[in-house]
Amino acid sequence: MRPILLHEDRLFPVDEKTRSIARALYQSVRDLPIISPHGHTDPSWFAKDSNFGNATELLIKPDHYVFRMLYSQGVPLESLGIPRWDGGESETDPRKIWQLLADHYYLFAATPSRMWLDTVFHNVFGMTDMLCSDNAMEYYDHITTELAKPEYKPRALMDRFNIEVIATTEGALDSLPHHSAIKGTGWDKRVITTFRPDDVVDASREDFVANIGKLGEMTGEDSHSWAGYLNALRKRREVFRDHGATATDHGHPTAATADLALQDCQALFDRVLTGKSSAQDQELFRAQMLTELAGMSVEDGMVMQIHPGSFRNHNEALFKKFGRDKGHDIPMQTDYVKSLQPLLNKYGNDPRLNIILFTLDETVYARELAPLAGHYPSLKLGPAWWFHDSPEGMLRFRHQVTETAGFYNTVGFNDDTRAFLSIPARHDVARRIDCRFLAQLVVEHRVSESEAAELAVQLSYKLAKKAYKLG
Amino acid sequence: MRPILLHEDRLFPVDEKTRSIARALYQSVRDLPIISPHGHTDPSWFAKDSNFGNATELLIKPDHYVFRMLYSQGVPLESLGIPRWDGGESETDPRKIWQLLADHYYLFAATPSRMWLDTVFHNVFGMTDMLCSDNAMEYYDHITTELAKPEYKPRALMDRFNIEVIATTEGALDSLPHHSAIKGTGWDKRVITTFRPDDVVDASREDFVANIGKLGEMTGEDSHSWAGYLNALRKRREVFRDHGATATDHGHPTAATADLALQDCQALFDRVLTGKSSAQDQELFRAQMLTELAGMSVEDGMVMQIHPGSFRNHNEALFKKFGRDKGHDIPMQTDYVKSLQPLLNKYGNDPRLNIILFTLDETVYARELAPLAGHYPSLKLGPAWWFHDSPEGMLRFRHQVTETAGFYNTVGFNDDTRAFLSIPARHDVARRIDCRFLAQLVVEHRVSESEAAELAVQLSYKLAKKAYKLG
Amino acid sequence: MRPILLHEDRLFPVDEKTRSIARALYQSVRDLPIISPHGHTDPSWFAKDSNFGNATELLIKPDHYVFRMLYSQGVPLESLGIPRWDGGESETDPRKIWQLLADHYYLFAATPSRMWLDTVFHNVFGMTDMLCSDNAMEYYDHITTELAKPEYKPRALMDRFNIEVIATTEGALDSLPHHSAIKGTGWDKRVITTFRPDDVVDASREDFVANIGKLGEMTGEDSHSWAGYLNALRKRREVFRDHGATATDHGHPTAATADLALQDCQALFDRVLTGKSSAQDQELFRAQMLTELAGMSVEDGMVMQIHPGSFRNHNEALFKKFGRDKGHDIPMQTDYVKSLQPLLNKYGNDPRLNIILFTLDETVYARELAPLAGHYPSLKLGPAWWFHDSPEGMLRFRHQVTETAGFYNTVGFNDDTRAFLSIPARHDVARRIDCRFLAQLVVEHRVSESEAAELAVQLSYKLAKKAYKLG
Repeated sequence: MRPILLHEDRLFPVDEKTRSIARALYQSVRDLPIISPHGHTDPSWFAKDSNFGNATELLIKPDHYVFRMLYSQGVPLESLGIPRWDGGESETDPRKIWQLLADHYYLFAATPSRMWLDTVFHNVFGMTDMLCSDNAMEYYDHITTELAKPEYKPRALMDRFNIEVIATTEGALDSLPHHSAIKGTGWDKRVITTFRPDDVVDASREDFVANIGKLGEMTGEDSHSWAGYLNALRKRREVFRDHGATATDHGHPTAATADLALQDCQALFDRVLTGKSSAQDQELFRAQMLTELAGMSVEDGMVMQIHPGSFRNHNEALFKKFGRDKGHDIPMQTDYVKSLQPLLNKYGNDPRLNIILFTLDETVYARELAPLAGHYPSLKLGPAWWFHDSPEGMLRFRHQVTETAGFYNTVGFNDDTRAFLSIPARHDVARRIDCRFLAQLVVEHRVSESEAAELAVQLSYKLAKKAYKLG
Repeated sequence: MRPILLHEDRLFPVDEKTRSIARALYQSVRDLPIISPHGHTDPSWFAKDSNFGNATELLIKPDHYVFRMLYSQGVPLESLGIPRWDGGESETDPRKIWQLLADHYYLFAATPSRMWLDTVFHNVFGMTDMLCSDNAMEYYDHITTELAKPEYKPRALMDRFNIEVIATTEGALDSLPHHSAIKGTGWDKRVITTFRPDDVVDASREDFVANIGKLGEMTGEDSHSWAGYLNALRKRREVFRDHGATATDHGHPTAATADLALQDCQALFDRVLTGKSSAQDQELFRAQMLTELAGMSVEDGMVMQIHPGSFRNHNEALFKKFGRDKGHDIPMQTDYVKSLQPLLNKYGNDPRLNIILFTLDETVYARELAPLAGHYPSLKLGPAWWFHDSPEGMLRFRHQVTETAGFYNTVGFNDDTRAFLSIPARHDVARRIDCRFLAQLVVEHRVSESEAAELAVQLSYKLAKKAYKLG
Repeated sequence: MRPILLHEDRLFPVDEKTRSIARALYQSVRDLPIISPHGHTDPSWFAKDSNFGNATELLIKPDHYVFRMLYSQGVPLESLGIPRWDGGESETDPRKIWQLLADHYYLFAATPSRMWLDTVFHNVFGMTDMLCSDNAMEYYDHITTELAKPEYKPRALMDRFNIEVIATTEGALDSLPHHSAIKGTGWDKRVITTFRPDDVVDASREDFVANIGKLGEMTGEDSHSWAGYLNALRKRREVFRDHGATATDHGHPTAATADLALQDCQALFDRVLTGKSSAQDQELFRAQMLTELAGMSVEDGMVMQIHPGSFRNHNEALFKKFGRDKGHDIPMQTDYVKSLQPLLNKYGNDPRLNIILFTLDETVYARELAPLAGHYPSLKLGPAWWFHDSPEGMLRFRHQVTETAGFYNTVGFNDDTRAFLSIPARHDVARRIDCRFLAQLVVEHRVSESEAAELAVQLSYKLAKKAYKLG
């Protein structure tokens, strides 16, 4: 018997009683609309609604989950067509690159990339055999041909995927041309932006000083004074809200926060504006800014997402050759208890504040995050993130978080991806795993079937909509 | 079909073979007497044997597991009747407070609080429907009426709950009036105290200097000299032993221990007695005192419990308004390997020393605690504690500890609670989970059925009695 | 019914569908030859091929897993015949010692030691009843009698155990007499050495300065100059390779690496050569040397194993009395992300480098090791190690590593043991657990049956052979 590319019971537990409950719960949420409140798709796709390119351009070259695995097994990034920063050559034949993926597809056994890709191949393109060396060109041609059809344009796929709303992520200095283009068309309700000010908050960036200058120009504020800088941020937030944003996002290396006196803020800002500040000052500035930004969220109601804990660009040689986001960001141990206290002491009890915490360090689920979210009214927990956005990672999240934080201090799933075609696959994995977790609670008589039915809808749809104020 | 409030197979695994073994093991230990060697019930209950008040007074207001969850979802503590330190007002109508719990009872799905409360409702008060908004007043009236009956007095409940012995916890300066009152009545065998000297050891407390003065008055020792202070502690330990204590308890922020030279001890003691010592000195003093107290345990045979790792009163605004123990203690990362070495180097091989270690940081189970307890004859491991005293937490404890430390370096269950009515429910969860764990070992042919039967009794009853010298 | 000492389905999951798949996978790999690429057996056994001594000498006295558990429960090491460094007496009667093990055998319930010993008793010696106080002497006599037979000589057991190749581990100064003795006999293909230079790299050792002198004598290099010292190491590596070595091994306390300028290396080397260097200098020297040794691996192709994270000789009193490797090494928290970066920045992208990482700190599996190995072509992950070389530990490893690193960035199993008779038992546990893990993936439709079949062979045999360049 030929192996099935995608089994309808995938990810459900083997026990028949549990599986049948998981299956029933899943049936009840499978077709709910997708809320995608945090991600990295390109807004121009939805504004221009042009067809995507070939299979390789769409499915390999932007997906660092895919090429990091190939690289770890000795496949040079050049041969995968990853463009070089240093002017060197990279493979340009998309067929050769696709063949390389097919030849190494066995490496992905039991990884989430494999499940996402198989789901895309099967559900979006109708493939039924597993990708392998022999059928690589058949796959490539079929996918590339399909992509050229009208029903594969971005907006058609938004409908086919039943995506109710999708948030992109833009830097503070982005003029939001694509969101402006759809303004008033109705699509502005479905495609919204998110305010990510790392470019004007993280003084360790080479472009930080220049960015502060641009911030002043864009807003008409004196962005080199502490008060003017904060006002400029407030104005940018307003522009983002005017383009649909309900949330902000902050990708600092740590979760450090601070609450300095006003004169210390100005002095610190002056030091980082020199462009020659110490690493400690840069860290303190990011810490102070998280607290300032929380204060702005109290004012304007934007939901604040904190995503700490990634050691960016660990591989310096690769960074020089290929740049950022090439699969060499590595998670680090991350503290939340002491780090967040200054911010929480200032705003943590304010009912107007909504912070969603993420982590790459699973040791904090039961030890720090669940106890914090199970106490502070301003805190909720984002889903298992990045390396942990996987069946096992999601199960660990629920098993370690639920007993202390419950379900209602979590915010449903978000896909955090630039791989547009994989969005339904990712939400499908989350829905299957949550239904599996709930089914286990039912058969062990820890929640009733009717509670589980309501919780399945909450975890798949309602909690995300409420937490991100999208309702 | 109406959901059952409490299923007789709750917490057992779904597989029929495993479940039937778990059920059989559980049947063999379900009715064993309860040993409660560590907890926080009020000794006056057992001395005075008065009826408890209403449902709200007994089941909500003292239970920070309950009100922390409500607070995290926006319910103000004032509205739950939590008394304010700052003189502000709190809700006084117990019915309104009970209705609030009922309205938010869905938040507790899959939490241990839910299972404990349901078990109390069902087993102690005979309720059969789940608490909800509609039946809240019916619940309140029924429970409050029952509580007024003679069979709900504390001693009657001690018998009904089959509690063989219960330990309360008192500070070093407590004059133990309630334990004195029951002395010689027979109840002094069932209700014993525990010596918790944090009030005269932790120099970071505002009342530390005053407490040292009181310690001198109570004991007739010069408590401001190092030798006199230690002698005073010895005398208080003797008084506690005379009121049934077999154990001491130490709730330091970390597990740090030290072994200073005598003259350094005196100098350090002088510094902390000024009331203006540094945080480092306070930490070093606590560290030195753990070692001193271990030495006293070697002398007098009291079992030493070490409970480190809680960041107390994380929410400063809430602390100012409502005080301690209001659900805002958060676990921290905790080291044991380096921290305990000074104490262990001095006393760790002494067969007269018995230390029971607890943790809020589960990462140390397999990495530090099991290897330490699997080597040092003086060390044993307390059960999964506080946030981890839950079905998943207990399973993680057994899965991560057993292979290196075995079962006999653990000490059975303790409930660590002030919620008297929930004690049988808590021990019931522990017995079910341990039987479940053992059943899995049996069906996977890792222990025999006869071994599992003996281990079930050890984990439910014998190990606690032996470890706490209660036999 | 009498309990069976060793059930044929042990360690398989209870669910019938999963168990039957696990069993089938296991049947397909059970009889594959054993590759034992990392361990601590005594090479003289294979060179001299003499019979082993009695049951106690072979099975208790060298096994610190066994006597650490007995010691933790109050059995003095003297009574187990562990020789004393301080000249004190130890029990000499092997029968008395064996009886002590039997009397305390219940302590090992659900530990890997119990499964290894039972497997040795059953599979090697044909015992069918569990060891207990009553049958202790029967056990002792039977095993001791068997051990004297020709078929229990080391080489006969190598054949019986189907060990294709076994690597021992020797210090840099070892003259490798036993490996020399088998050179050219054919056995040199099956018994190879491993280069472990901790004795000439770790400047915290009392014998470090003397060892550097010996290194110079052995190699004819000026081992007190930086260049001469490095050349001497190169020469020793060559000798080891000439005795079969394909790998090196490094047991540093941490994973720290460094990349100093040449003149700083010489200066640091001069400081540690004084024998009075600071702990920081010693750590920095080990760190620099890991990078130097990686550079030598690039040159000569030897596979580099890094085993950090053990706090050696935690119990100082016991260390003075009984010495090293007596069950009191305790794992510590260990960082890899920042620690390895200097080495990886220098050599991490070189296709000629092969590093195998081990850990005693399971928190790094999903957070650090899988992301590192899933990116760097030079990194692979060793199996669950030491305290985690157990059914639960192996499952945690696969569950936490696979989704990010896949299977092909791991290297199969190694037994890391000096307990020769237990080697088949240990590989058997690993094969059973890996087949169990794969079977779960199959029934949850996460890998196909044919993929699982190939992966079972990879994990049991092929990956180890390839990773250690033994094929």
